[in-house]
Amino acid sequence: LDYFMIPDKLTITEAHERIKSYISHTPVMTSQSVNERAGCQVFFKCENFQKVGAFKARGAMNAALSLTPEERSKGIATHSSGNHAQAIARAAKILGIKSYIVMPRTAPEIKKRGVKGYGGEIFECEPTLQSREATLAEVIGKTGATEIHPFNNYDVIAGQATAAKELFEEVGQLDVIMAPVGGGGLLSGTALAAKYFSPATEVIAGEPAGSDDAWRSLKSGKIEQAQSNTIADGLLTSLGDKTFPIIQKNVKEIITVSDDEIIEALRLVWERMKIIIEPSCAVPLAALLKEKDRFSGKRVGIILSGGNVDLERVLKLMTGR
Amino acid sequence: LDYFMIPDKLTITEAHERIKSYISHTPVMTSQSVNERAGCQVFFKCENFQKVGAFKARGAMNAALSLTPEERSKGIATHSSGNHAQAIARAAKILGIKSYIVMPRTAPEIKKRGVKGYGGEIFECEPTLQSREATLAEVIGKTGATEIHPFNNYDVIAGQATAAKELFEEVGQLDVIMAPVGGGGLLSGTALAAKYFSPATEVIAGEPAGSDDAWRSLKSGKIEQAQSNTIADGLLTSLGDKTFPIIQKNVKEIITVSDDEIIEALRLVWERMKIIIEPSCAVPLAALLKEKDRFSGKRVGIILSGGNVDLERVLKLMTGR
Repeated sequence: LDYFMIPDKLTITEAHERIKSYISHTPVMTSQSVNERAGCQVFFKCENFQKVGAFKARGAMNAALSLTPEERSKGIATHSSGNHAQAIARAAKILGIKSYIVMPRTAPEIKKRGVKGYGGEIFECEPTLQSREATLAEVIGKTGATEIHPFNNYDVIAGQATAAKELFEEVGQLDVIMAPVGGGGLLSGTALAAKYFSPATEVIAGEPAGSDDAWRSLKSGKIEQAQSNTIADGLLTSLGDKTFPIIQKNVKEIITVSDDEIIEALRLVWERMKIIIEPSCAVPLAALLKEKDRFSGKRVGIILSGGNVDLERVLKLMTGR
Repeated sequence: LDYFMIPDKLTITEAHERIKSYISHTPVMTSQSVNERAGCQVFFKCENFQKVGAFKARGAMNAALSLTPEERSKGIATHSSGNHAQAIARAAKILGIKSYIVMPRTAPEIKKRGVKGYGGEIFECEPTLQSREATLAEVIGKTGATEIHPFNNYDVIAGQATAAKELFEEVGQLDVIMAPVGGGGLLSGTALAAKYFSPATEVIAGEPAGSDDAWRSLKSGKIEQAQSNTIADGLLTSLGDKTFPIIQKNVKEIITVSDDEIIEALRLVWERMKIIIEPSCAVPLAALLKEKDRFSGKRVGIILSGGNVDLERVLKLMTGR
């Protein structure tokens, strides 16, 4: 691992300039009801309003724009069943290049349609990491495309950092900034943005208790394997060898929360803020509410990571349980 | 009816100044997906993010602030089972005066809690217009409170007009502005704002086919009775003698839509814009999509009226039908 490659302040600033015209400058929202409930001032960076409905548009765009003309000419590839797949297909479409997306055959039809809508070429595989990686290797072998990993990629991390950078620029000094943690792309980007653009700000993550591998990784000092015992289905991934060291060094703490706590925070945002966020996206607010005493009176930024939900599923989570 | 009382340009400008510090200056949102689907450029004025979750906060606040000190001292009263009830209770709380809200005993517990949360005093009645009006008369007889009608009140209309005024100020020239129509408070306010602040803009309303009394009223030239055969439960009211003449003179057309068309528009906004709107609020977009040819290539403003939904009910609407 080459520590010299970790994005520095200039790299993130350049990434921001590079992607600016291709992404949305998402709004920051506040809510009196949420502030009263939380006992502090919360500033929500609404990446649920981002292109493709998630912060993933930032990292994918930065990585695609950072390729050489020769690399670009052969296209970009990834394996993903979620928001990153659409983000890659969209970036390729904007650049007029090919994208090859490896997706488990069990992926929801709506996700496949999203990728196809951007002109992405889908390769179906079995729903195992092994099959995903083997299929991706095969596709890359045939096409010469460049892989853009969903999180374990410094260009992707630098791109994700721009959400927190925009938040600091808009609201000024924050005592704390929070993000969810899955593979750690958003969290490591957020931590680097805090380090460079708001060094007094503490970085705290929220993680589902049913997939608390990042929390365990910080305790053990090595990358632990993720479980998948949570409704926060965007956060079922283990950290990578590029995201873990950044998180280890720059994140003060990870707070784990139960699915009930996640659903409560989800419902609070839907009902009081009238915006749609996905379950994974509610995790940092759930963490804040769980340990609200320590945030009392503070100015807290939260990156709302995304809003791509299966409405039926989420409405059932909130009501039918 | 005194035509000299219809709010003029100065009245609406003063109303806006009067309420500014008590309401949210709501954002205007756009969506590439919606624009592509609609074949025109749509600017959504997000009153679902307004205080109490609906534009009603504007009219109630303006009417309450327009009372004399003596009137205020005796409190304000209304009958409403919906957003206006909360808006009146909130306005009273801000002014430190009493509010008396007549609600049908069948009103959802959550609405009652909302009113109580603002310190409003609830008087339960039978779920008929007759019982509502009799109970309100009794409450007013006892307390001396001033009634603030949900829509048939010029101060309320002037307050509702400020949403469209803000939209014109933010996005400039629009070819069309659209709002839903129930009792006509929002629509008549929107029409007056267009007349004074953007006279070239056509005003078009959306109305549920299952409660198309405003559409019939324009045809017949007199106020027709509302039915209640629609999911758009905020729009079940007949026009009033103050709203009807304004609408008759200043609204170009009312487009009626089926419940299926309303649900399709509702779902489009939830899924693509990631914001929560109530079924009534989706009616103008449903109308636009139904007759999209006539809006082709135009700049269209839509007032998103509110976002107060019962999640269980919406789940059923979107799925179980």
